[in-house]
Amino acid sequence: MPRAVVLLSGGLDSATTFAFAKSEGYDICALSIDYGQRHKVELVRAAELAAILGAVQHRKVTLDLRAIGGSALTADIPVPKDRDAEAMNQGVPITYVPARNTILLGVALGYAETVEAFDIFIGANILDYSGYPDCRPAFLQAFETLANLATKAGTEGSGQYRIHAPLIQMTKAEIIQLGMRLGLDYGKTISCYDPDAAGKSCGHCDSCILRKKGFAEAGVADPTEYA
Amino acid sequence: MPRAVVLLSGGLDSATTFAFAKSEGYDICALSIDYGQRHKVELVRAAELAAILGAVQHRKVTLDLRAIGGSALTADIPVPKDRDAEAMNQGVPITYVPARNTILLGVALGYAETVEAFDIFIGANILDYSGYPDCRPAFLQAFETLANLATKAGTEGSGQYRIHAPLIQMTKAEIIQLGMRLGLDYGKTISCYDPDAAGKSCGHCDSCILRKKGFAEAGVADPTEYA
Repeated sequence: MPRAVVLLSGGLDSATTFAFAKSEGYDICALSIDYGQRHKVELVRAAELAAILGAVQHRKVTLDLRAIGGSALTADIPVPKDRDAEAMNQGVPITYVPARNTILLGVALGYAETVEAFDIFIGANILDYSGYPDCRPAFLQAFETLANLATKAGTEGSGQYRIHAPLIQMTKAEIIQLGMRLGLDYGKTISCYDPDAAGKSCGHCDSCILRKKGFAEAGVADPTEYA
Repeated sequence: MPRAVVLLSGGLDSATTFAFAKSEGYDICALSIDYGQRHKVELVRAAELAAILGAVQHRKVTLDLRAIGGSALTADIPVPKDRDAEAMNQGVPITYVPARNTILLGVALGYAETVEAFDIFIGANILDYSGYPDCRPAFLQAFETLANLATKAGTEGSGQYRIHAPLIQMTKAEIIQLGMRLGLDYGKTISCYDPDAAGKSCGHCDSCILRKKGFAEAGVADPTEYA
């Protein structure tokens, strides 16, 4: 089976993306990045998910984006809480990590080249994260163009890199419904930006609010452990 | 003065790029990446150069590309020695690090966004490194396009990112002559892929050979300490 690299954060979107990629017939090489994120517990969940979902490989790469900061996820900046949809949709949120998806996809591309995979999957989504510039189709298209110029494999023509974002236009409810059809246990995933020391979700950050709303709209019981 | 981010490895090319960017009137925010490179001593040189050349900031970001490997610089693969020009120009060398410049420029972009710089300088060069896909103008142009789609600043239009590679078409001798005019002390730089424990250059890897040839052609005494 052809191999695909899947960026697996341990969250709901990336886990669904993994399950979808696997259902499409790929052997999955999962990649998780410890970039100094506040919600580091997601990396524990990513390792569990990689095992449960049957990754043929799972690599964790450490990258200290705290040395740069500039985000509530990588610096000592509070995570916004209890914001309504209007507040969430005003501009780029402070949880945006400068150039994060460029960097994550860059590492995924390097990993893909070493395992001879040409298909890279990312759980980017434009509806719930309209404020993040690096979740938009134009960004992903530009990265795909770059990937084929940046690499040995792309340049020598042994294959053509493709960036897949199967969730890009789906609502959170649709994503959850897809995952349920694929047999995914969302209790293993965590979306919270600001979990407590025990790894329980705060229930109040943008990511928790969108997740709760998604389960409600999907008519699926929310398995999340809230603090 | 406007700020620029300069990728500073501690090598001859990036140091010259720094001196050139400074001469163009930028305040320099230098960025060095510890990506698990075999020639880690270059990071010590980078810190010294940043101080000598007058960086307004110098950040070091750690990124463990050894978790991926796939290169003589990041895995237990021998560095080729004593290759002639013909051998060097046959395809992509084993010292190519998969997606390295994509990743380094990605981190530089994130750093640039946090310091409100829109100009990013990289010492990429096409003549001596024709085998590296991510040293070509087409790659750099694609990254510039990406940068303006990937970021808050690029999207909101507060500025336009530019990727500068001032050495891109220069021979090693021309690069050295430029640096000499700018007062650069090349004794502080190191190019070797495989230095000894004391940080002395091997004199036999592709990078050492190209450096030696550059000094000879420039008519400049080679200040490098060889093992």
